[in-house]
Amino acid sequence: MSSYKAPLADMRFALFDVLDAEAQFQRLGFTDATRDVLDAVLDEAGRFTETVLAPLNPVGDREGCKLDVSTGAVTTPAGFRQAYAQFVDGGWAGLTSPVEFGGQGLPQLVGVPLKEMIDAANLAWGNFPLLSHGAIEALLHHGESWQQEAFLKPLVEGRWTGTMCLTEPHCGSDLGLLKTRAEPNGDGSYSITGTKIFITAGEHDFTDNIVHLVLARLPDAPAGSKGISLFVVPRERVAQDGSTGERNAVRCGSLEHKMGIHGSATCVMNFDGAQGYLVGAPHKGLMGMFTMMNSARLGVGLQGLGLSERALQNALRYSRERLQMRALSGAKFPDKPADPIIVHPDVRRMLLTCKALIEGGRLMGYDAAMQGDIAANSNDAAERELADAQAGFLTPIVKACLTEWGVECTYNALQCFGGHGYIAEHGMEQLARDARITTLYEGTTGIQALDLLGRKILAMKGAGLKAFLARVHAFCEENAGNESLAEFVGPLRETATRWQQLTMQIGQRAAGNADEIGAASFDYLMYSGYAVLAYWWARSVAAADASTHPQAFKDDKRATARFYFARILPRTLTHSAAIESGVAGLPELAVEAV
Amino acid sequence: MSSYKAPLADMRFALFDVLDAEAQFQRLGFTDATRDVLDAVLDEAGRFTETVLAPLNPVGDREGCKLDVSTGAVTTPAGFRQAYAQFVDGGWAGLTSPVEFGGQGLPQLVGVPLKEMIDAANLAWGNFPLLSHGAIEALLHHGESWQQEAFLKPLVEGRWTGTMCLTEPHCGSDLGLLKTRAEPNGDGSYSITGTKIFITAGEHDFTDNIVHLVLARLPDAPAGSKGISLFVVPRERVAQDGSTGERNAVRCGSLEHKMGIHGSATCVMNFDGAQGYLVGAPHKGLMGMFTMMNSARLGVGLQGLGLSERALQNALRYSRERLQMRALSGAKFPDKPADPIIVHPDVRRMLLTCKALIEGGRLMGYDAAMQGDIAANSNDAAERELADAQAGFLTPIVKACLTEWGVECTYNALQCFGGHGYIAEHGMEQLARDARITTLYEGTTGIQALDLLGRKILAMKGAGLKAFLARVHAFCEENAGNESLAEFVGPLRETATRWQQLTMQIGQRAAGNADEIGAASFDYLMYSGYAVLAYWWARSVAAADASTHPQAFKDDKRATARFYFARILPRTLTHSAAIESGVAGLPELAVEAV
Repeated sequence: MSSYKAPLADMRFALFDVLDAEAQFQRLGFTDATRDVLDAVLDEAGRFTETVLAPLNPVGDREGCKLDVSTGAVTTPAGFRQAYAQFVDGGWAGLTSPVEFGGQGLPQLVGVPLKEMIDAANLAWGNFPLLSHGAIEALLHHGESWQQEAFLKPLVEGRWTGTMCLTEPHCGSDLGLLKTRAEPNGDGSYSITGTKIFITAGEHDFTDNIVHLVLARLPDAPAGSKGISLFVVPRERVAQDGSTGERNAVRCGSLEHKMGIHGSATCVMNFDGAQGYLVGAPHKGLMGMFTMMNSARLGVGLQGLGLSERALQNALRYSRERLQMRALSGAKFPDKPADPIIVHPDVRRMLLTCKALIEGGRLMGYDAAMQGDIAANSNDAAERELADAQAGFLTPIVKACLTEWGVECTYNALQCFGGHGYIAEHGMEQLARDARITTLYEGTTGIQALDLLGRKILAMKGAGLKAFLARVHAFCEENAGNESLAEFVGPLRETATRWQQLTMQIGQRAAGNADEIGAASFDYLMYSGYAVLAYWWARSVAAADASTHPQAFKDDKRATARFYFARILPRTLTHSAAIESGVAGLPELAVEAV
Repeated sequence: MSSYKAPLADMRFALFDVLDAEAQFQRLGFTDATRDVLDAVLDEAGRFTETVLAPLNPVGDREGCKLDVSTGAVTTPAGFRQAYAQFVDGGWAGLTSPVEFGGQGLPQLVGVPLKEMIDAANLAWGNFPLLSHGAIEALLHHGESWQQEAFLKPLVEGRWTGTMCLTEPHCGSDLGLLKTRAEPNGDGSYSITGTKIFITAGEHDFTDNIVHLVLARLPDAPAGSKGISLFVVPRERVAQDGSTGERNAVRCGSLEHKMGIHGSATCVMNFDGAQGYLVGAPHKGLMGMFTMMNSARLGVGLQGLGLSERALQNALRYSRERLQMRALSGAKFPDKPADPIIVHPDVRRMLLTCKALIEGGRLMGYDAAMQGDIAANSNDAAERELADAQAGFLTPIVKACLTEWGVECTYNALQCFGGHGYIAEHGMEQLARDARITTLYEGTTGIQALDLLGRKILAMKGAGLKAFLARVHAFCEENAGNESLAEFVGPLRETATRWQQLTMQIGQRAAGNADEIGAASFDYLMYSGYAVLAYWWARSVAAADASTHPQAFKDDKRATARFYFARILPRTLTHSAAIESGVAGLPELAVEAV
């Protein structure tokens, strides 16, 4: 099987050397979030994920979840339930939730390395607590106070878990088409009827109750997406006084057979007049769901990051051990029967691609969470607004790029193993299969691209991009005279300038033909991801140089940054050319089969 | 499950409109290979693969092969054995083998669309006959006449199948390390002892005998790759008079658990003093193996092509049926609840990427086979030499690019299905898992890249590249005044010129540091693939315009070519930048873990 060691050194570099997290947390009023506390959290999270979750990863893949069709009960793989109990006992469930509901009140950013470690150790297992987080967010922002009282405490403590019930067989990306109905019962509750599919953690054996957040239509709902309401529907009924009652009319009808994440229960959920309560205003359910989605999208981005990290660690180890052929420039280990394959430049290319995307991507993901913390906690309204715009702007980039790179990194890492990567024994093929879901769920890459370009850039007049570019330009200004950073600052500035030009060009074209948005969206998204990473790699070198880390650490960051600028950033040339070709280069395809 | 329809129209366009195959075959002396005969072969191959093999594809994935450890016998999935009997009865096994051994003596190129169809219909099944082809080639070129008499006829007729036994646990790419021993028995036969892994079709229930071609060391063998000999080792012993005797001491020890191609038997083969015969000269076994490998590499390239075609067909169908959201430029089907997703430019981008890579890649693969036919059959020695150089030059490009694009196309096609692509029901995830082996076996992409740049370009002074470029420049010259092709000819000429410059640049650098070869090899390979496709797309438009096909067909080829030049060819910008950065942009990675 594949091994996993939490990359605490690079996580600390990202948090403390680059993002200055301790000072930021103190400034935002998280007085408990001191370096000592954070270091202890990281160490403990590393221990828990390495020793409890990681060994269960192949078990989950092999065993999968099992449904008892006569009762609708789902049994999770051996050890999953016990690991969840340890997770709850360790206080991990409520790490970043409000103290008033039993949480530890730490910044969201502190939950991010934990999430990365969980996903690297055991993605399928990590899907069970993931959705609770979204449910908590939705109830915190949109729930009535009795709902918060009744549902939040057990969710925060992890005694119950949550789900997001959006998708139906005929609608995924287009929720306006959904058919699930909600009939008022006259007592403040509603009867929910319909079928939801692809419900992660819809049923399992971890907890006494499961809290479904369900999108449905009220009888007087307008058609389309303006007629969707959000309901909370617990598996075991919950009265307004918080007391738990009989079993609700919701049941798992089947489990999907999937390419990967076998240990994750992906359920068809049948609601057959199940009792639920309206969350937020009638017909405004998509608002609540967006709250859950943004949190989940960042989470899925971290899944891509975690899988990439684990894949790279194993590919590095294998490339150091596997002896095969001699370096073209002459034997490097003449006393061995052959050189380790890591001496071959093409193997290094694959490994360094992973390393550059992971370490840069880590900063991109962590910073997006930091912007969320600033948006929620700063005393300065203007700062809150800038941070909120950036968090919204970065979310689709983080989700899409970290997952696309997750697919790429697990591909490259498997490739280093040659044919051995394709057999189950080494665990690399599981990582590749598991990674494949991440560019699909919580909105495909195409949906993220439309969210970025259509909503975050064009509809919101590029507020997030402008705020981010201001940081890039400020960094370039600050370091304009810095000889040792010149090799990065110049190309970074050019990349940013080109980014602005491309944005304007698309905006002008889209004014004439809205299809120009869809024609540019994917390449614009990827361009943005590589531009963001160029910024973080330049800042990484600056932060490493300014740190007290050993020279070898600084050299490593600089070498990886050089690789990034020489070998990865030029991908923007291709994306830029594709964007410029516009919709004219994308011929129509016959809607009727020929 | 996914469906499959043999793309006969585009295959005919490639063979007859672009490659002028009928005239070429006649010129090369294949008097039977008339258009009528070839049309009948294509029609029958389509019927066989669509109706017999394609329905067994999900069966093979679900059931896999099963080993009886007490006997070493392997049972293939339900229906596989019967399908093979139909294949043999239909005369497919010997389609391109010499008439004197029971074959039909058709050109190799005629076997190529058949192979593409087989792999698209059922890749795992296709692996059983694939290796016979390599064994036949090795025995034809290197076997003694009694060996040809004894082994070739049953192999050609398909009554027996063949294998290639190269890999051992500690060596794959580096065969110089292999340990399997061959001791002379004093009667002209040898006793073979050792363990081989990853042996495709090493054991099965299709045929009465299996002919293993095995690399092993003679007692007096020099160390390394100059001490490897090739042996033919049948499962049931074969005497020099061709009579079959008792069971040989070779046995399947276990089956690998793989990510995909579950229906293909990937065996650990234990040779325990098995009786075998030397094929070719002592210590020259790698020569014979290279003969097998070249044929197998072209075959694996076609696997990537076939999977891409099937994936695209299903993604096209789904994108036409699935209703989700409205076109950004306004509803295209206002009477339906939503527009089919094919109206979205980003969905078109994914589909057109597949289409451009498949139709261009088909010509690339078919032309490589045609060069092989010319090299083997032309009366003109100079033409044979040019064709042989091109076949050798194109083989690693075909193998690596068609399989990398196979991974990309199955990725894109699955992505069109959204979450539905990830579940087994639609069959898309099987295509993605099956495709994943193709960039690994028969030499990884990295190995192909070294073969291309190190052997075919630098060691062989670029003879194949020069011959190919001569065709490109001749086409550009011929069409210099052709207004309607100008949009393609200009960029094609630039791409070719740049290709030459990059080749010279790498050659100069490599003279100073051999590691420059490995640093450039992958990007050079991919650059070459996109350059070759630019040529075929330009020629496709020219051939379509000159044909009697309906205008819609011509328009479709031109539109797809435009897409290729606008959206895919710019990938050469990234590869070119990576090549230019050289080994300096690829920092060393510590060989010892830190």
